[in-house]
Amino acid sequence: MIDLRSDTVTKPSEEMRKAMYDAEVGDDVYGEDPTVNKLEESAANILGKEDALFVTSGTQGNQIAGLVHCKPGQEVIMEAQAHIFLYEAAALSAFAGVQIKTLDGNNGAMNPGDVEAAIRGDDIHQPETGLICIENTHNKAGGAVIPLKNMQKIYQVSRDHAIPIHLDGARLFNASVASRTPVKEIAKYTDSVQFCLSKGLGAPVGSIIAGSSEFISQARKWRKRLGGGLRQVGVLAAPGIIALEEENIQHLEQDHENAKQLAEGLQNIEGIVVKNKVETNIVLVDITNSNKTTEHFINLLKEHNILTGAFGPNIIRFVTNNGITRNDVNNVLLAAQKIVNH
Amino acid sequence: MIDLRSDTVTKPSEEMRKAMYDAEVGDDVYGEDPTVNKLEESAANILGKEDALFVTSGTQGNQIAGLVHCKPGQEVIMEAQAHIFLYEAAALSAFAGVQIKTLDGNNGAMNPGDVEAAIRGDDIHQPETGLICIENTHNKAGGAVIPLKNMQKIYQVSRDHAIPIHLDGARLFNASVASRTPVKEIAKYTDSVQFCLSKGLGAPVGSIIAGSSEFISQARKWRKRLGGGLRQVGVLAAPGIIALEEENIQHLEQDHENAKQLAEGLQNIEGIVVKNKVETNIVLVDITNSNKTTEHFINLLKEHNILTGAFGPNIIRFVTNNGITRNDVNNVLLAAQKIVNH
Amino acid sequence: MIDLRSDTVTKPSEEMRKAMYDAEVGDDVYGEDPTVNKLEESAANILGKEDALFVTSGTQGNQIAGLVHCKPGQEVIMEAQAHIFLYEAAALSAFAGVQIKTLDGNNGAMNPGDVEAAIRGDDIHQPETGLICIENTHNKAGGAVIPLKNMQKIYQVSRDHAIPIHLDGARLFNASVASRTPVKEIAKYTDSVQFCLSKGLGAPVGSIIAGSSEFISQARKWRKRLGGGLRQVGVLAAPGIIALEEENIQHLEQDHENAKQLAEGLQNIEGIVVKNKVETNIVLVDITNSNKTTEHFINLLKEHNILTGAFGPNIIRFVTNNGITRNDVNNVLLAAQKIVNH
Amino acid sequence: MIDLRSDTVTKPSEEMRKAMYDAEVGDDVYGEDPTVNKLEESAANILGKEDALFVTSGTQGNQIAGLVHCKPGQEVIMEAQAHIFLYEAAALSAFAGVQIKTLDGNNGAMNPGDVEAAIRGDDIHQPETGLICIENTHNKAGGAVIPLKNMQKIYQVSRDHAIPIHLDGARLFNASVASRTPVKEIAKYTDSVQFCLSKGLGAPVGSIIAGSSEFISQARKWRKRLGGGLRQVGVLAAPGIIALEEENIQHLEQDHENAKQLAEGLQNIEGIVVKNKVETNIVLVDITNSNKTTEHFINLLKEHNILTGAFGPNIIRFVTNNGITRNDVNNVLLAAQKIVNH
Repeated sequence: MIDLRSDTVTKPSEEMRKAMYDAEVGDDVYGEDPTVNKLEESAANILGKEDALFVTSGTQGNQIAGLVHCKPGQEVIMEAQAHIFLYEAAALSAFAGVQIKTLDGNNGAMNPGDVEAAIRGDDIHQPETGLICIENTHNKAGGAVIPLKNMQKIYQVSRDHAIPIHLDGARLFNASVASRTPVKEIAKYTDSVQFCLSKGLGAPVGSIIAGSSEFISQARKWRKRLGGGLRQVGVLAAPGIIALEEENIQHLEQDHENAKQLAEGLQNIEGIVVKNKVETNIVLVDITNSNKTTEHFINLLKEHNILTGAFGPNIIRFVTNNGITRNDVNNVLLAAQKIVNH
Repeated sequence: MIDLRSDTVTKPSEEMRKAMYDAEVGDDVYGEDPTVNKLEESAANILGKEDALFVTSGTQGNQIAGLVHCKPGQEVIMEAQAHIFLYEAAALSAFAGVQIKTLDGNNGAMNPGDVEAAIRGDDIHQPETGLICIENTHNKAGGAVIPLKNMQKIYQVSRDHAIPIHLDGARLFNASVASRTPVKEIAKYTDSVQFCLSKGLGAPVGSIIAGSSEFISQARKWRKRLGGGLRQVGVLAAPGIIALEEENIQHLEQDHENAKQLAEGLQNIEGIVVKNKVETNIVLVDITNSNKTTEHFINLLKEHNILTGAFGPNIIRFVTNNGITRNDVNNVLLAAQKIVNH
Repeated sequence: MIDLRSDTVTKPSEEMRKAMYDAEVGDDVYGEDPTVNKLEESAANILGKEDALFVTSGTQGNQIAGLVHCKPGQEVIMEAQAHIFLYEAAALSAFAGVQIKTLDGNNGAMNPGDVEAAIRGDDIHQPETGLICIENTHNKAGGAVIPLKNMQKIYQVSRDHAIPIHLDGARLFNASVASRTPVKEIAKYTDSVQFCLSKGLGAPVGSIIAGSSEFISQARKWRKRLGGGLRQVGVLAAPGIIALEEENIQHLEQDHENAKQLAEGLQNIEGIVVKNKVETNIVLVDITNSNKTTEHFINLLKEHNILTGAFGPNIIRFVTNNGITRNDVNNVLLAAQKIVNH
Repeated sequence: MIDLRSDTVTKPSEEMRKAMYDAEVGDDVYGEDPTVNKLEESAANILGKEDALFVTSGTQGNQIAGLVHCKPGQEVIMEAQAHIFLYEAAALSAFAGVQIKTLDGNNGAMNPGDVEAAIRGDDIHQPETGLICIENTHNKAGGAVIPLKNMQKIYQVSRDHAIPIHLDGARLFNASVASRTPVKEIAKYTDSVQFCLSKGLGAPVGSIIAGSSEFISQARKWRKRLGGGLRQVGVLAAPGIIALEEENIQHLEQDHENAKQLAEGLQNIEGIVVKNKVETNIVLVDITNSNKTTEHFINLLKEHNILTGAFGPNIIRFVTNNGITRNDVNNVLLAAQKIVNH
């Protein structure tokens, strides 16, 4: 099977499995798991933040950020297609009691002027604006990299109004590699940042959330409330440490290359239109002109042992990942051509 | 003072004050206030609903609807400029734990197709859609009447997907009078409805929420939790009963007439552009071309003893109400002309 | 009917009705109702607090206190039979997201040592203690007055641990009159205090919550979220002002006298045991030895035109109030004697 | 180090590490991890429930139970020393919006009559009782086994009042082994049950929650909201499968034997009083008469390379686990004797 549904399907490497097997562990609820401690320290360091915390998923990291930064009855600003708004089952409103105010972005990036205009005034009818969220890369915008300049400007707005910024960086390292900008340089314009060790980096489970010491101290208790305070979780931290090794990170470059190759090829097939700029590892195609429904097209790909997913009406998403080779890309292109010809 | 800031500023009439003075009362927490019971029965009857409940404000009625209809982690669909989203301090997310999904409407009316498209699918990443809210008349759209046909179509969508509809009818009677449609006919396409006895109807305090007996039974407990379970509140219900008298309702016609007159006059003043259709008692004007800031323009009106309010950048809102006469309208027009000439 | 079910059944006096009729009003959401402003100023003054706010019920006042003082995931300490815990439909947990830790008290008063021992430590498994609540007089303990010394000691504990104290003083003036202690002296040992204008003080609707200016500023927004931001509510504030007149407050003395008379008489009837000390206006009797069930006894009283309420198994509660005369007390005693004899 | 602080400190066995290394995995968010599926099926089977779900901790399982069974504003009944009440940082109130009503139990078991009496009536002032929680074995009561008869009686109460029962069975298998009762027989008297794969069973991370198919379907979405929807989590499920092997479960017998041996020895040391019945793997001792503070005593044990924990004033808890041998027990007894003699 050529699985392009997501980069979440990546399986741990032999090296990661070995690390799990060998991991030195302890009870992390007591702060005694040396492997977890090493991962958290290393992650904080890479991100340039005071402290970091291992969490079981990107969703958990994002929820914790909302719970620490906000009080119930506040409003959180984010782009209209943000993962937190679309795909976290309304958890932020359910748990943190906040309202989400969405702004239509451009390629996933909110206009800093729009952000400033959306900040609520001091009026009894209005919620206080409690948080601004940015997603980089932006999944729904096709893995778009949010320009550093955009982040800097929104950061400036946030400083002017004393509102914290959280970065949903589930695919932060894709943004970093694609834009040749150290994650530390990106994280600088945020108060808290979450990124996934799974997805492109290949660890089986887990994410990191980072910020100030005070932020992480509160995050630790909210993680406990969410049921994310674990025991000998060094077995998950060990592959996480490998995920953060420089050469593993640089491997994302290959995913991006493959995605570009795939996009170019698909664009040349009549009836298929690539919808996004393909800066990282996601390709979105519109198959309206193929005279097939999305569901049908996906099923036909499946008959060729290719897995993909619907991403809105008429849109199919392909996500390259460390299980995909250049040869797989070629096979996908051949299959797509056959499907359209048929 | 000619107070056009809102129809919430209306003061109780002599008749209403007399009714308060004379009101037969009891302890409404025990269901023993005869005046409240009479008002609730009468309101249910007018709306064509099984039961009704007196609440202290429109906000309280809307919150109760969300709390009864929804479970935490669900999503509520409403128009992007809805009062619940803009002006209730994020209370629905804070208390009911729901996420709000806004749709850009046309003159306050959501496209039924958009509503259907916004209903979430059966997927672990997605919140269930728990409620659809409509606002009629629509305040931010300038008191626009939501066409009955639009409500019928959205109602059909809601039936197809088994999702309840709540009507924020703070100014429901304005809609009814303007469109010459009985409120019962409008309320028919909703599961619950809230309207204000204050505002145009002139009672000093209070709103009604109505729905099925089961809905009201649950609403009663949520009202208690919100602190809206009151004692000898017949003193407020008494003017509420007068507010619902046919001739009092018909008086809204006069407010609408005054608003139209006002809009016509303002439109003729250079530098002032009326932005809304003026179907009821609200007039929105853009004063960009007057070369004055909104704040300055409002202050100048104030110097002429005229009170108005800002309603977004460059927009001033005028709301006619039962304290405004045709003569007041003329004075406002004279003042506006002077301000622009100056 | 002699209605001893509660002091909530009191009806507004002629003077209060007149005050409603004459009340000068404005839109209180804009802070423009002069009667409300006068009431709030006067209440803050009487309580010795920086600011005060009119709310529609004691429950609303208590909820607001929890919402302002606490963050979700905290714990609130209160006596095991507190009104907030027993009779506010779990609203504090529903809205403020806090856990309630109850302590068995002595006559409604918590042991200060128990309070201190209940404060949570700095541990990831434990909620932070966010608030201590005291109820004075204590309803379920039979209108017991919490000794000032007890309040002072708990206050000292709260200062030592930097935890705020809220006083549910629904019947604060009963405590003040019975203990000949100014309310200001009692309120001194709290950060926020709520008392009812209805109940013994006789206003038809409403309570006051008071505290620091900052507290009230936040309380005002939470009141809005709860739907307690009202319009021309001077019509309720006007009788509230009368409720706070010194001679009206002193009238509570009469209720207390009547309660003592009632208790003495009931105690002399075989088969009836008075359970509480009767310091204020509440009498609790155990009728186990009358060989009648609580329900039956209450029904027999009703046949004598006397209304009372069950207050736990075998316990009947009598609450004197401004609608009860000495003659009524005598009639109750005659009826009780007849019922027992029968 | 002889670590008796908890059975959470157990480290995965060589066999478990090997299982992780070899685990066949997939993306569990898509339901495609075969190892997770196998574990969940097996767990459901052992418990006699329709379906089961892997969660990352006992706390997460308990939270999910509350979120699925309850609505905000309800009340949950549990024993006064329950883990959910004491050690989950008020998460149930924070997330599910419910109030907790605690009952003093006998050796961790609530009196069924007390449970029935605590169920709330149909009154506007009262929360609905939404859930009854039982903890078996009961941690704070010293690993006490809740008698099956007690569970049956409370179950009967729950059926009579149509209220669900959740079992916090973090140490359910200890209860099963100690009482020679199949877990299926215990789980029969519950609607949902949570047990830990870590703790005595020795898996590094994870718990199971089980119930009806409908319950698990909703649990799955709440797990996602809490951030417990993971990817290639077969690496954790694999040791979980070993944890549930019959011979691994029976190994708990050894922990219980060791605990009894330890208790007997400690009881014979002057100045030490064993406080609990020691039915499973927990020993609680009161060291008041040793003339040492708890903190001091614990530190002295530490000097002998023995780790234990404070469990209330003057109480030290010892928890035997699969890392503790009979020889360790003897060494602890020698050390304790030395400390007391000194």
